[in-house]
Amino acid sequence: MSADPRLERFSLNQATTKRWPVDETVDGCVKQGVTQLGLWRDQVGTFGLERTAALVRSAGLTVTTLCRGGFFTTPGWFDDNRRAIDEAAALQAPVLVLVSGGLPDGSRDLDAARRTVGDAIGELVPHAEAAGVRLAIEPLHPMFASDRCVVSTLSNALDLAAPYPPSAVGVAVDTYHLWWDDQIWKQLARAGAEGRIACFQVADWITPLPEGVLLGRGLPGTGCVELRRFREAVDATGYTGPIEVEVFHEAVWSRPGADVLAESIEGYLTHVL
Amino acid sequence: MSADPRLERFSLNQATTKRWPVDETVDGCVKQGVTQLGLWRDQVGTFGLERTAALVRSAGLTVTTLCRGGFFTTPGWFDDNRRAIDEAAALQAPVLVLVSGGLPDGSRDLDAARRTVGDAIGELVPHAEAAGVRLAIEPLHPMFASDRCVVSTLSNALDLAAPYPPSAVGVAVDTYHLWWDDQIWKQLARAGAEGRIACFQVADWITPLPEGVLLGRGLPGTGCVELRRFREAVDATGYTGPIEVEVFHEAVWSRPGADVLAESIEGYLTHVL
Repeated sequence: MSADPRLERFSLNQATTKRWPVDETVDGCVKQGVTQLGLWRDQVGTFGLERTAALVRSAGLTVTTLCRGGFFTTPGWFDDNRRAIDEAAALQAPVLVLVSGGLPDGSRDLDAARRTVGDAIGELVPHAEAAGVRLAIEPLHPMFASDRCVVSTLSNALDLAAPYPPSAVGVAVDTYHLWWDDQIWKQLARAGAEGRIACFQVADWITPLPEGVLLGRGLPGTGCVELRRFREAVDATGYTGPIEVEVFHEAVWSRPGADVLAESIEGYLTHVL
Repeated sequence: MSADPRLERFSLNQATTKRWPVDETVDGCVKQGVTQLGLWRDQVGTFGLERTAALVRSAGLTVTTLCRGGFFTTPGWFDDNRRAIDEAAALQAPVLVLVSGGLPDGSRDLDAARRTVGDAIGELVPHAEAAGVRLAIEPLHPMFASDRCVVSTLSNALDLAAPYPPSAVGVAVDTYHLWWDDQIWKQLARAGAEGRIACFQVADWITPLPEGVLLGRGLPGTGCVELRRFREAVDATGYTGPIEVEVFHEAVWSRPGADVLAESIEGYLTHVL
């Protein structure tokens, strides 16, 4: 438990402090009263899987998600995703976030790519269930539809999850990717009613977008997303789980991790809670 | 009539050849058998409104659209949009394309901004009807939702058009903005059934997106959009009007207009028709 009850649901997604080594991140979280952490496979891999798991446990931290599996149109996706599930289990992460990948090289067939994603997830379900890891389909902003994630709306993510049990396959709700959708409030209610909300991540929308658009997110409160309205809508469905701050931005990454964590907390308290 | 019947529905949207002066554009279209042109207010303004209208008429060209009105959250929007309607009428453009504008400065209230757009269009309807100009609400890609256009889907554009007669208010279908939407085929059918398709524009989706994301479009065939499927879906609704090639890209703009027009035609014949 955090000393500050207002941080009870707060989780630092490690992408926000991408260049902060795992040991410093764990130490920094403890110092600032943060008890939950969303981990990334590349950062965990650098520090070592077992070493990360042991360190996080000994510090009393809870892992909220592992990011990420997916990229189902890349050769070797099946083995890689099975490894990701195993890593999530080793880290005691209850959720593995899946980013589907874009169109296969040279393809224009979005419908086929989306079917491929649905089928691929189905192939992973038995292993995920056996490992006790829930898969979370993450819809990414439509600007990533061709090269990173063909799943562009919460509605589409829910359709793809529908054939599988909610305990095995959920969705990841990320404000940065979904804020523009005029159907989002209806779809959040649907996600809740269908028992699919597996994780909730917050980041803010700021412009101008940088070249390549990947590293354009803002810390909570720096942009134009109705973050509190999102949090209230997610809560209204009965979701009581963690709320991760997950920001990708070169200017954020280039600053000291402890400063970024402090600002993430401040933005969370002021604009999300 | 074009000499080549395959170009009967082809229209060059002037944005594609942004730095080609109006007189050279008209001359270039005639030389390449293009009989239709979509005009932009800034380019027309540079050459002169009456002068453009006279030149286009004397060359036997048809104006398919005027781009653009809108930006309803900017002070002075009402007078500016009335002028845009008058300019469209002077150019004998049957359609004025509307880009709604983004969130007002400092606002996070997307719902309110969308209501503002709907109301503003209502205020323009009488003047548009009197001038014989149809207004076309253009949904822009969600990556423009905060700073350029709060209308992000065809579905939302149709909802906003719904209170007004289809003869007065339609929608602009642009492949670049809508290709990612898993609901697009259903919404195109709806747009047709509701009699709302006022214009149809094609551009291709290419990555990586440039900084600011405005100038990232590809000529038809250079990207991943199912352009022919779009054209067939639009045609299936009964739409028989012009098909504009409208591309924004610095590398396209920096090349000779005649070359870009030739490539636009080639891309249209190969990937759209």
